[in-house]
Amino acid sequence: MISRVAIYHVLEATVPLYVAMILAYLSIKWWKLFTPEQCSGINKFVAKFSIPLLSFQVISTNNPYDMNLKLIFADILQKSLALLGFAAISRACCTKKFDWLITAVKLISQIVVLQSLIWYTLLLFLLEFRAAKGIAATPSSEILAEEEPGTIGTTQQTYQEGQSKGVTARCSRAFHFLLVVGKKLVMNPNMYACLISLIWALISFRWQIQLPLIVSNSIRILSDGGLGMAMFSLGLFTALQTKIIACGTKKMLLSLSIRFFLGPALMVISSYAVGMRGILLKVAIVQAALPQGIVPFVFAKEYNVHADILSTAIIVGMMVAVPAALAYYFVFDQPRF
Amino acid sequence: MISRVAIYHVLEATVPLYVAMILAYLSIKWWKLFTPEQCSGINKFVAKFSIPLLSFQVISTNNPYDMNLKLIFADILQKSLALLGFAAISRACCTKKFDWLITAVKLISQIVVLQSLIWYTLLLFLLEFRAAKGIAATPSSEILAEEEPGTIGTTQQTYQEGQSKGVTARCSRAFHFLLVVGKKLVMNPNMYACLISLIWALISFRWQIQLPLIVSNSIRILSDGGLGMAMFSLGLFTALQTKIIACGTKKMLLSLSIRFFLGPALMVISSYAVGMRGILLKVAIVQAALPQGIVPFVFAKEYNVHADILSTAIIVGMMVAVPAALAYYFVFDQPRF
Repeated sequence: MISRVAIYHVLEATVPLYVAMILAYLSIKWWKLFTPEQCSGINKFVAKFSIPLLSFQVISTNNPYDMNLKLIFADILQKSLALLGFAAISRACCTKKFDWLITAVKLISQIVVLQSLIWYTLLLFLLEFRAAKGIAATPSSEILAEEEPGTIGTTQQTYQEGQSKGVTARCSRAFHFLLVVGKKLVMNPNMYACLISLIWALISFRWQIQLPLIVSNSIRILSDGGLGMAMFSLGLFTALQTKIIACGTKKMLLSLSIRFFLGPALMVISSYAVGMRGILLKVAIVQAALPQGIVPFVFAKEYNVHADILSTAIIVGMMVAVPAALAYYFVFDQPRF
Repeated sequence: MISRVAIYHVLEATVPLYVAMILAYLSIKWWKLFTPEQCSGINKFVAKFSIPLLSFQVISTNNPYDMNLKLIFADILQKSLALLGFAAISRACCTKKFDWLITAVKLISQIVVLQSLIWYTLLLFLLEFRAAKGIAATPSSEILAEEEPGTIGTTQQTYQEGQSKGVTARCSRAFHFLLVVGKKLVMNPNMYACLISLIWALISFRWQIQLPLIVSNSIRILSDGGLGMAMFSLGLFTALQTKIIACGTKKMLLSLSIRFFLGPALMVISSYAVGMRGILLKVAIVQAALPQGIVPFVFAKEYNVHADILSTAIIVGMMVAVPAALAYYFVFDQPRF
């Protein structure tokens, strides 16, 4: 069984996160230190500076040549399955399809250094795509915003245009649309940070080159407090809501079951599909059931997509995580594993 | 002479500070990321959380039993001389006596871990004193705000009160006044941080006790980014001003000469007075000529007292610091030292 010392080590790592969050919560509820506008300033600092620099630091100091390829493939497969499944479900039952798709994608994702890089890029792409949809919904191009693949024909007809003209217009709009998304993506500092750090990691571990101390110090001076600031930002957000379970109990249970059951279940399927067994399979499953990372929340707040669900998932998730991990550990301990 | 390697080491330590500041400057001037209200949220976070926790971490990890007593006495003496001198000068020539006294005190102070503890406590006391004066200047106690020691009698007379009654009222007002200052001081988190950290340092180095990792991690999660955040806050402030030398050239030259000439000169006098010679004297002088610390700026911004002068002193001071230190080094290199 897991020793008391091991549990204490887990607490040593997680309690500080709660302390940062509770301090922020108290600074609003008790001391009334920050106005909502000031809070959004802090969140913006975290999203635009702390997190990108933290991403750079974490990714660039992990050896990409040491990574287990099977684990990466299983991870990619799990996320692809989740994406397809959620896309189908959100298309079928939700009113705001895109928001729900993004949130479900966020809920299933976790921060396991490099594996999640592609995932985060995709997430940012979806977020920018949604934002661009909002921009495109100006009078001059109002069709675009409402246009879903299935309805293109109908919308087109109302513009009594000929078939060939319609195709050209559609192509040019699609091109313009992708351009807007691409442009916004290029503006996102986290996108840069992830790409540059991966390239740098590939270079530095291949030829054993280190960043000059003057550069790495410059990055660390702002990235060092990144995690604490992100937790602080989460605490501020929670305090500004009317209740701690900001999204309501029903959505909370849904998000927790996505996180702790659906995620690991999909990981089991993916791992078997890529032929991953034994200890690696167990690692992959427990990784899939790790508590919600803070980065998706920061982006949810910045892009204004279901930040309430993400905040609840993190706060409750961190408390559920230890028992959940213990439960999975217990299952693995059975002789048939 | 000083080697190139030594200069590069200095740059390794100072350039990151500038990077954090320039990033903040660009985020306002180019990217228009933050509103002034959001900036003040970030500064408040720095003043109320980062700096106090950073102070705790720095002070509590330095062995107070290892400190050189002569150096401390010389430091206290230098600061006392400065305080008395500035009090006399500001009384004689300035319109806003108190603000100028505080700013001059800030300009001469530096962050040399423990020596400055008493100094910062005094500084906070002065700042709170000034703030309390502002509070006291409500209609119900309007005499208090204008009341200077020399004018008490006159003000008193206008309230056509008897001598004994006047004394009682004066005493009770003075008591009330000190109460307000004390109350505000007790509310200041940096005050707590300095006191508790000093007490803890005395305990932990006496009995070789360490803070449990769970506590020190909780402190570090927010203090780690403290210095970077403070520099970022300085950059934001600078960008919101109309020009980089926010206070004008005249005040800048005045503040720099206080920093780099008056400070070290007073230190020479104090060092000779306590009988400090040789290498320690040189250390004390160079210490006195170190560039302006960031903490006084954060407080200046938070309490709204000459933040423009402090920001200029830091920005220009950091550039002047290396040549100034080299100049003092050159003087010390002469045979007669």
